[in-house]
Amino acid sequence: MAFVEKLRKIWADKKSLVCVGLDPELSKLPQCLRVLPNPFFEFNRQIIDATAEFACAFKPQIAYYAAQKAEDQLEMTLDYIRSKPDCVAILDSKRGDIGSTAEMYAQEAFDRYAADAVTVNPYLGGDSLEPFLKRKDKGVVLLCRTSNPGAHDLQDFESGGEKLYQRVARLAVDRWNKNENVLLVVGATYPKELGEIRSIVGDMPILVPGVGAQGGDVEAVVLKGKDSMGKGLLISASRSIIYASSGKDFASAARSAAALLNRQINQFL
Amino acid sequence: MAFVEKLRKIWADKKSLVCVGLDPELSKLPQCLRVLPNPFFEFNRQIIDATAEFACAFKPQIAYYAAQKAEDQLEMTLDYIRSKPDCVAILDSKRGDIGSTAEMYAQEAFDRYAADAVTVNPYLGGDSLEPFLKRKDKGVVLLCRTSNPGAHDLQDFESGGEKLYQRVARLAVDRWNKNENVLLVVGATYPKELGEIRSIVGDMPILVPGVGAQGGDVEAVVLKGKDSMGKGLLISASRSIIYASSGKDFASAARSAAALLNRQINQFL
Repeated sequence: MAFVEKLRKIWADKKSLVCVGLDPELSKLPQCLRVLPNPFFEFNRQIIDATAEFACAFKPQIAYYAAQKAEDQLEMTLDYIRSKPDCVAILDSKRGDIGSTAEMYAQEAFDRYAADAVTVNPYLGGDSLEPFLKRKDKGVVLLCRTSNPGAHDLQDFESGGEKLYQRVARLAVDRWNKNENVLLVVGATYPKELGEIRSIVGDMPILVPGVGAQGGDVEAVVLKGKDSMGKGLLISASRSIIYASSGKDFASAARSAAALLNRQINQFL
Repeated sequence: MAFVEKLRKIWADKKSLVCVGLDPELSKLPQCLRVLPNPFFEFNRQIIDATAEFACAFKPQIAYYAAQKAEDQLEMTLDYIRSKPDCVAILDSKRGDIGSTAEMYAQEAFDRYAADAVTVNPYLGGDSLEPFLKRKDKGVVLLCRTSNPGAHDLQDFESGGEKLYQRVARLAVDRWNKNENVLLVVGATYPKELGEIRSIVGDMPILVPGVGAQGGDVEAVVLKGKDSMGKGLLISASRSIIYASSGKDFASAARSAAALLNRQINQFL
């Protein structure tokens, strides 16, 4: 089943728009895990088991694994996510390069790690996205308006009444979505922009990081961001779920945090 | 020694602006190497030994290693480049993410791989660059105008007479270069834009991919791109050097191709 179709089915069946970010740092893991041979995988496995009931997606951020020389544990994590039939796996790697290199990045995400979707940076333009877009069964999640304060520096650049992030949204709809496999990233910290982008892209799914540790407001995100079916969002939290407790009870604390976020979201739908 | 200072010293001493891209694909390696335990490293090692005399920099593109599950061979390659005191190592990874994740990407490039410099995508804005910029001894090579046809899609977006890539160049000079460790990427395929960018950034070094296989013109690049000292460019070629021959003589063919490119560049300086 194609990625967006699978996502819509999960949303309908499961009543969850929660995406759990898996960004483990060794110094933040519970002490009892740090001594294990595969601490990141063991941490992720327990988080996945504890939160899967309340989540539609898991999103490991590759930088954490690369910095800590743990690509093997990222592979194991992606394998484990696939064992949950009602969750998708989004590799958050924000890749972007010219065509021949982008082809290798597409292989990294979709073949090596077998992710269902990958985040991609659109700065290099349409031909740099093609190696991702041509994978019809996979999701391509393009950065549009990011959650950080510096998003303003380039993304608000304005031409003829249109800002750069709006242009990205428009190109995503008009030119890049022929295989109906494009999604956008819009930070929860910018609800006004989220509403504008929703009006440009129709029912295209939007990944929304920035609730939780980054302070985005759940109500504003849901009201501004939902699609015509009252779904359409992957609302992502990482630190507020995976580090809900730093003790041995980290998994049950993560479960409670994911359940709470799911309830908070659903009350506004 | 700080990165840009080291680069200027190498340019002055060695009379080479050539950067060799190390982007090996297993299917393109000489048959005799494919059966070895570390074929990419063995290929790179021979290419580095053969071309170092005519190069100021080596630039491995991480996508090739990631797609082929060869991070260990990328580490070995970076180690080997460091054994050449008059060459710098640029990790081409085009990373970009919010601050906490960008910090992990900076660790990936500068600590795990110990690269002298890394390429970074500026789409997320100033705070996403900070974890790289604060590493005073390292080089931060920001994408400005890339070499691919689709560069036009977003990078030419124009506001008040200024295009997006010009804004990146201006921000690079005005705000992001406090540690004098910023460089820009400008594709050889856009010499007019290269000239405009040179006039914005003064003597900031510019990495210029796209001569060789992508068809950029060496004379135009040198004339439009050189700085006030008649240097200032890292002119990068990959496929035209590393695949100059597909046979056993690949290293000597690469040496000849690098020497030729160096002569072509220097005749216009």
